[in-house]
Formats: sequence, C-alpha cells, structure tokens
Amino acid sequence: MSDYQSIAADALNASQLELQGNPNSLALRRPFDPTAHDLEPTFRLTRYADLKGRGCKVPQEVLNKLVSSLQQDYTTQDHEHSHFMHMALPRIGIGLDCSVTPLRHGGLCLVQTTDFFYPIVDDPYMMGKIACSNVLSDLYAMGVTECDNMLMLLAVSTKMTEKERDVVIPLLMRGFKDSALEAGTSVTGGQSVVNPWCTIGGVASTICQPNEYIVPDNAVVGDVLVLTKPLGTQVAVSAHQWLDQSDRWNRIKLVVSEEDVRKAYHRAMDSMARLNRVAARLMHKYNAHGSTDVTGFGLLGHAQILASHQKKEVSFVIHNLPVIAKMAAVAKACGNMFQLLQGHSAETSGGLLICLPREQAAAYCKDIEKQEGYQAWIIGIVEKGNRTARIIDKPRVIEVPAKD
Amino acid sequence: MSDYQSIAADALNASQLELQGNPNSLALRRPFDPTAHDLEPTFRLTRYADLKGRGCKVPQEVLNKLVSSLQQDYTTQDHEHSHFMHMALPRIGIGLDCSVTPLRHGGLCLVQTTDFFYPIVDDPYMMGKIACSNVLSDLYAMGVTECDNMLMLLAVSTKMTEKERDVVIPLLMRGFKDSALEAGTSVTGGQSVVNPWCTIGGVASTICQPNEYIVPDNAVVGDVLVLTKPLGTQVAVSAHQWLDQSDRWNRIKLVVSEEDVRKAYHRAMDSMARLNRVAARLMHKYNAHGSTDVTGFGLLGHAQILASHQKKEVSFVIHNLPVIAKMAAVAKACGNMFQLLQGHSAETSGGLLICLPREQAAAYCKDIEKQEGYQAWIIGIVEKGNRTARIIDKPRVIEVPAKD
Repeated sequence: MSDYQSIAADALNASQLELQGNPNSLALRRPFDPTAHDLEPTFRLTRYADLKGRGCKVPQEVLNKLVSSLQQDYTTQDHEHSHFMHMALPRIGIGLDCSVTPLRHGGLCLVQTTDFFYPIVDDPYMMGKIACSNVLSDLYAMGVTECDNMLMLLAVSTKMTEKERDVVIPLLMRGFKDSALEAGTSVTGGQSVVNPWCTIGGVASTICQPNEYIVPDNAVVGDVLVLTKPLGTQVAVSAHQWLDQSDRWNRIKLVVSEEDVRKAYHRAMDSMARLNRVAARLMHKYNAHGSTDVTGFGLLGHAQILASHQKKEVSFVIHNLPVIAKMAAVAKACGNMFQLLQGHSAETSGGLLICLPREQAAAYCKDIEKQEGYQAWIIGIVEKGNRTARIIDKPRVIEVPAKD
Repeated sequence: MSDYQSIAADALNASQLELQGNPNSLALRRPFDPTAHDLEPTFRLTRYADLKGRGCKVPQEVLNKLVSSLQQDYTTQDHEHSHFMHMALPRIGIGLDCSVTPLRHGGLCLVQTTDFFYPIVDDPYMMGKIACSNVLSDLYAMGVTECDNMLMLLAVSTKMTEKERDVVIPLLMRGFKDSALEAGTSVTGGQSVVNPWCTIGGVASTICQPNEYIVPDNAVVGDVLVLTKPLGTQVAVSAHQWLDQSDRWNRIKLVVSEEDVRKAYHRAMDSMARLNRVAARLMHKYNAHGSTDVTGFGLLGHAQILASHQKKEVSFVIHNLPVIAKMAAVAKACGNMFQLLQGHSAETSGGLLICLPREQAAAYCKDIEKQEGYQAWIIGIVEKGNRTARIIDKPRVIEVPAKD
C-alpha cells in the first residue's frame, strides 16, 4: 500500500469514526475536527475559495443576456428536432432546472443537469454530500425520482498542501458517493483538475418516459406554493465563519449567541445534505403543477423564473418565509448584505418550491413530515397575473428550530 | 436590446466576419484580433489561468490513488447492478474515456463523459470549439459516433473586466455550440460560475445499444497502433505564448522562426478543434480492437492506461512519433520540460490511439485521409507482454507540416 493509499484510508476511517456507525444519522455526527486528520487546527475548507456555494453563480441578469443569443438557436433547433422525432415535446432548456432531450429510442427522454460550486462548509465529507444532493435536486425539481448515473466534477485547490489534499479529497469524494448511494444511483466517472479555488459538483442523468417528469408550467389561479426546506443556509454558513473573525462577529453578537450559530450551522448542513427525493415523489401523488429548487438566485429569483415559464396568466405571491432559527435576525443585523427577507439570499441545495392544488397542499406537507420527520410550509398563493413573483411587504417569518 | 445583448451581438458579428462566410474553413480564419472587439491589443485569453489545457489535470498517479478507494466500491456495486439487470456487461468506469451504465430500458446503455480545462489558445471562438471537440473525443474513443446531448461548463475569470467578459464569453459559447452542431448534437444546458481562472468544458451523453460502442479491451498480438492526430499541441501553444516573452523566446529562437511558430500554432488549433468523429466511425468499418484519445497524460500515459485494460497478455510498443513540424526541435531546445519524445507531453483534444488488425490499418489510414484530408499514422505494434506500453529508445519523429 502506497503512502497515498494509506493516508486516504486513514482519512476515510477517521470519517467513518465520526459517523459513529450510522452514516445517515446527521444528528450523531460530530463537528469536523481537522486535528483528527493530522491537519492544522486552523484548517478551514471554506478558505479555499473566495466565493461560497451557490453565491458563485454568474448573476442571473448577466447570464440571461450572455446566453440569449444561444437561446434563440435552441428554439429553432429544438423545433426541428421535435419535428424530426415526430413528437411535440415542450422545449425545455436554459432557465429551467434540467434539460430534457428526446432520444432516438422508443419515446424515451434524457433528463440531465449539472452543477458545481465552492466549499460552503468546513467538513469535507458533508461538503461532498451537499454537492451531490444539490445536483440531484435539479432532477427532483422536475419530479424525476430515479437517477441513472452521476459524474463527479472536482477541482483541487492549488493552495492545499499535499497532506491537506490527501485528507480532504477522499472525504469529499466519499461524501458525494454516499449521497449518490442514498439516492439509489452511483458515480461512474468525472473530471478532476487543479484550480485556485477548491470546487465540487457533478452531473446527474436519467433516461425516462415522459410521464416520469413533471413539466413545471401548469400552475393555475388558486394553487398554493409549498417550500420543503427552510431558507437561510448562506446566512448560517457565513455567521459560522464569522465566529473566527471578531470584527464580523461583533456586528451580530447582540442578536445571536455562539451556540445559536453553531446550531443554525448544523441545521443548515443537515438541510443542504438532505435529498429532495421524497419531496419529488410526493409531487406525483399530490398532482403538483410545477416546481423548482431554490438555489443560487434565492427564493424570489427562482420563483420568478418558475412564474415566467407558466402557460396560464398567473403570478406567485409569497406571504411566509420559513427561516432557520435566528438567521432572520442575523441577516437584519448585517444590514442589507444578504437580502434574505427580500428573497435574494443565495441558498445551496435548498428546498423545492412547488405549485400544488389548494386542496392537496396540506396533505402533501403532512405526508412529507410523516415520511421524513421534516416540516414543509405553505408559503404563498398563485393569483391571476403576468407571470411574475413577489414577496408581500411584511412577510411572516417562521423560525425553524434546529432538529435535536 | 440591452447593453449586454448589443455587446454580445457585436462580438458575434465580429466573429462571423472573421470566419468570412465559411464557419468550417479554418484555413480562411484570421488570427483573433482583440482590437476588432474593442479589447486592448495585449488581451490574451490564455493569461486567465496559470495552467493550460489538459496540463491542469491532477497527476495520473495521484488521481489513481485518490480514487482507488472508490473504485473498489464501484466494482461491487456494478456487479450488483449487472445482476439486477440480468446482464453481464463489462464494468467500465474510472480510467477509461467514458462511463457506460446499463439502463432500465430495453437493453440500452448510457455512455457519458465530462471534461473541462483552462484556455490553451487566445481565440475565444476557437477555444470553445476545442473544448467541445475535446469532450466529444471521449465518446469517439469508445467508437460512439452519435452524441444525444451536451451540457456546457463555464467559469468566467474574476480578473476579466465586464467588457472582456461580454466579448469573450459569447464567443466561447458560440464556438462550443458550433462544434456541437458540427457533431450533429446540441447543447441544452450547463452551469456558469465565477472563478479566478477562466474554465471551459462540458458533458457529452449518448444513449445507445451495446453494439454502438467498442469496449477497448480486445487488442491481440500482431495488432498495430494507429494515431489520428499529430503530437505537440502543448509545445506549439507554449511556443506561441513565448513570442511575447523575450527570455523564453531566446531559448528557442535558434531552432525555430517566428513564422514556424505561428504555423505550428495554427496547425495545433486546427487539429484540436477537429472532431474525432470520422476516426470513430471508421473504427467500426475496420474492426478496431480498442482505442483511447490522447489528452492530458500524453501519448504514453494513455497508451499505458489502454494497455492495462486489455483482456489478453499484450504490450504496446511505439516506434514512430508524428509531431507538428519543428515542435520536436522546440521541445529539445527547452530541455526536458515537455517530455514530448518521452510521450509525456500533455495534449488537448488529441487524436485517437487505435488498436487495429494489422491487415486493416493501412486501409483505415487511407480512408480517413480520403474523407478528411488529414493523415493518420501507424505508430507501433502490439506484442506479447504484461499490459504495459513503452516507446522504443530512438523513436522515429515524423514531422507533420502545417496544412496550407
């Protein structure tokens, strides 16, 4: 066994120890301790990138402009493609969570998505899980519950020592892979490069019949909006980083205790690592009219994109904001920097935002809680309108406590 | 039309002008002129990353160690999967060019690959084409000639001005997309982030019957090795960068003229942008026993990986090295830095290295030249051995001239 293998094996063993025999029990998981892996006590994975998580995305309006010239071509092309295939499938491409491509074989479609970003938490194993859950979430947002294959995308930071690399990378990979296994799929390949900023992400693909996915364009007036995870992941991970930075910490310590921040951080980690798979499965059971997952553009950003794709003349109005406990106060104490209550705070591996028939929504929320032990919330309604979304003036903030 | 759109449209127009009405004619293409896009004359895309092209890969031996713990799990898992599917498909995963995943539907497989890297040439449009051709090359190496879908992976450099971004990114995207169109496929989605280093790459996926791909493990003693593109792309793009750096240039100016370097650079660009699709199609016609594409690990690195996967006890012996004209001399003048003649110089979007029955190889080379106007070379033989590859002591260097 070479040095690398032995170090990698040690790192995995240490990781498994931390799991204390129950890889799915996040509650039992101890905080990541760099020294348990022979790393410096000051080692922080999140320092290997200057932008965090989905906060790294090219801004929505810039992206829309940059791809607009390509988008036109897709329309033409997809039209030809549909004609060639003698099918009248809706065009689904840039702007939605997945691409859907009609295949040459027996009415099947390829549903596919990719995503990658920078470390948002300091525990490499959890970071791997979050990255994987985040990619899969795009499939789940389309109601697809089976993933046929995953690829992993990885960049090792040029600033990591060999030792750090040999500890961190196997843990990242292991977390990613474990999350894939939990989702009933596997990772069969990928690409790894060296880059200034550590990067992790992947590709998720499913080949399915058209009835396996839900085209997210069927919202009708009277539907309600359900959200399956709390907001505030970016605020929580930032606040946690500020525990090490006294100038930053001083700005928020009047509204929050260190213990509050640690709890919120673990709640956020737990939430980001959780799969939206049950949420997706229940969309079929309760006849969802469409859904998206809340990530880099924030709740309102994604609500607006979803609204813009609706067939009917509808608008989304959001009344309630479920937020990880204390994070609304932290966001307020920071001035406007997160724009959390304005719906613009980036989330990583956030919940599904789902349009459900009014009479099904409560049952949906009850069912998800029964199956997973997590709450979902009715946060708004679908009105007549011009395919936009907004948050009311004084939304009700629902404090979502840490799970004990 | 917004500013962004208008700038993007200008950039595309300028690009189309440069193509002089014939997007496929590389010979007609003028060198990229930053000032034609209102950029500074000193703008160089390749300066937006400290590593170039496939030279950015995590070293092969490090990668093997880092993934070895995962690989074992795949074996187990794939075995179960195969059993579940009642099929006895070969396990194909990390180490080969694509992953092959049996699907739930009618004997179909998902063949998939991903790749991304940093700018290697200064022309953004050509860089986009090269990135796309490079990703597709992994499918072609498996004998797959149809790609069903592509995703684009893009990172905008944090060091680019807004103006640079708005010129460069649409050109990169356009080049990528045009190459996809040339390959008969399309780009339906992707991910864009902000990163210190500009990055471009993608994902290519095909859903096919098992007879559409060639498992690259059937080499037999007596086969010959054919290479479909010349070596030396990394040397050529480096030499071209050194035209701006007098200390570097002084080291090689005794063996090469500025004109030689420019020609080699354009030959390399042309070669990297060329699809390996015809090469893949002809593998079926001439009964290839296996193939890989030559990229970041160099000719010998990839030959060794291919050799290690063979069912029979064979070894590959390489006698001839086709190299872009003058680049062998440049590599020698630089000391050992590229290890070109040792087979270790990274290539980007390199040729296919194919094991062909001896009696078919000449016909294969003739056919590819007839269809594409590009030479292919018989570079070695398959002997009895222990699944390794080597280059003989004094290999014959074949100077491959620029195409006029």
